[in-house]
Amino acid sequence: MQKEFVVIALGGNAILQPGQRGTAEEQFANVRATCRQIVTLLEQGYRIVLTHGNGPQVGNIIIQNQATDAVPAMPMDICGAESQGMIGYMLQQSLADELRRRGMDRPVASVITQTVVSADDPAFRKPTKPVGPFYDEVYARKKMAEGETWMEDAGRGWRKVVPSPDPVEIVELEAIRRLARDHTIVICNGGGGIPVVREKDGTLRGVEAVIDKDRGGQRLATGLGADLFMILTDVPAVALDYGKPTQRWVSRMTVAEARGYQKEGHFKAGSMGPKVEACCRFVEAGGRAAVIASLNEALAALAGEAGTRIVRD
Amino acid sequence: MQKEFVVIALGGNAILQPGQRGTAEEQFANVRATCRQIVTLLEQGYRIVLTHGNGPQVGNIIIQNQATDAVPAMPMDICGAESQGMIGYMLQQSLADELRRRGMDRPVASVITQTVVSADDPAFRKPTKPVGPFYDEVYARKKMAEGETWMEDAGRGWRKVVPSPDPVEIVELEAIRRLARDHTIVICNGGGGIPVVREKDGTLRGVEAVIDKDRGGQRLATGLGADLFMILTDVPAVALDYGKPTQRWVSRMTVAEARGYQKEGHFKAGSMGPKVEACCRFVEAGGRAAVIASLNEALAALAGEAGTRIVRD
Repeated sequence: MQKEFVVIALGGNAILQPGQRGTAEEQFANVRATCRQIVTLLEQGYRIVLTHGNGPQVGNIIIQNQATDAVPAMPMDICGAESQGMIGYMLQQSLADELRRRGMDRPVASVITQTVVSADDPAFRKPTKPVGPFYDEVYARKKMAEGETWMEDAGRGWRKVVPSPDPVEIVELEAIRRLARDHTIVICNGGGGIPVVREKDGTLRGVEAVIDKDRGGQRLATGLGADLFMILTDVPAVALDYGKPTQRWVSRMTVAEARGYQKEGHFKAGSMGPKVEACCRFVEAGGRAAVIASLNEALAALAGEAGTRIVRD
Repeated sequence: MQKEFVVIALGGNAILQPGQRGTAEEQFANVRATCRQIVTLLEQGYRIVLTHGNGPQVGNIIIQNQATDAVPAMPMDICGAESQGMIGYMLQQSLADELRRRGMDRPVASVITQTVVSADDPAFRKPTKPVGPFYDEVYARKKMAEGETWMEDAGRGWRKVVPSPDPVEIVELEAIRRLARDHTIVICNGGGGIPVVREKDGTLRGVEAVIDKDRGGQRLATGLGADLFMILTDVPAVALDYGKPTQRWVSRMTVAEARGYQKEGHFKAGSMGPKVEACCRFVEAGGRAAVIASLNEALAALAGEAGTRIVRD
């Protein structure tokens, strides 16, 4: 019973719930619950490639790196690679366990993934993403004098701010494609991929930046030629007039409609905005449809009975 | 020009040189030099799967984890997964760069790898591997009262000691096999694999342990049906009477001869011992030959002109 090929972007709530500190036990418990949902989709015959966010995890790794001079602190690209290892491990162990529990025998693999961004991306001229620990103003001003961008965060202290450039090319796409084609369940492009730029001689160099995981997921889904791109998050669907008395859920919209709502300011920059943008790009690039849904309603959403479906026309 | 399928276990010196602190710059420079050697082998037509040690890297990650209470410290299995992400990233970026420089177009992928060990392994009753930061005696005694094993290290302080069980099964073997069969260059099983035990219900659980990377490499090589298993290290070959006036290099020995030398105490437990053991096991399990050589002489060693070759008869 072969169904569609779906690239799924797991939201932060798939790994860490609001209010949790992020112990290994908490993360494993959340990831196990997530994997029960994913294996239900596999059981139904969907072919799946998974990607995921890494914000809180890479944030904690950076804090640990800055906490001691006893060993050298690693740059952000390496911290991102570490977070892919960490989250990939938790996901692949929990997926393997759940598959076994249901009597399914399917290979699972997490692939460390680099994503090329353009050194000319305007985001590099205007960093927007706060990362790492809070510092005092003196430290922040010293770092700003060295060329870094820092921001005061609502009385909680100062944080370094890095750019969020657009993903251009997934370096390990071919390896991921081969695994997915062979019906291996692949976990990849975590945190939108480790951001690298391509130097003039063609070599890769890690940069201090954060790629939006949904935009990274779209690149992945388009690159793999997936039928569907699905973003699983903590709200049941896309809403118009979100949070207002006139709020209404959207079960289906065309890309043209979505672009219209975007212009009318329905989707917030920090939350639904990038998700709808990624979905529009996927469909505009030739994908059949994109879905935004709650993690707990993934199966119903694929059947068109929950979430929001964004289609060509 | 298709040549043998070789699983290569990279020694610590492939990533970090003695005396270095382990900055990202140092590690990248070493890894780039290593990848030039590896790509030379690929150019000659060898099919390659790479595995590597992670001792200093996971050690530093554990030190960073213990350095702050601001965020939850991760258990050792997750720290190991992080080190696989870190080293896999450095290797795959440097390999991709070197391949591109030589006009070769080959996919590269690092796969996060779990390795099953037996909960009944005698190593669990006798931990031997010191890990993480040094502490004072008071702290060590408190932890020992909680059931942990700690050791005083030659006046430098106390360190936690964990077991080094034998690898039994590589969980992601099938995914690795599929990639390698497709001529993807795979980096996997870093640090001998993330040690997990299989619970009675079949599920996996990470444990505090360290798998010897050469023994892990042998499991990998045997599992993949490699023709050759090659350990690249910082000495030119295996020696008898190592460090004595009677020292002599061995260019070729049968497994029976190697087993004999082992009994006579020629190979030190902490260095050449596990390497020779892993090579013997590979050949005993049906592998064609195993090679121990210097990283800088990898190509000559595969041609039989350097290093030590361990053969069936």
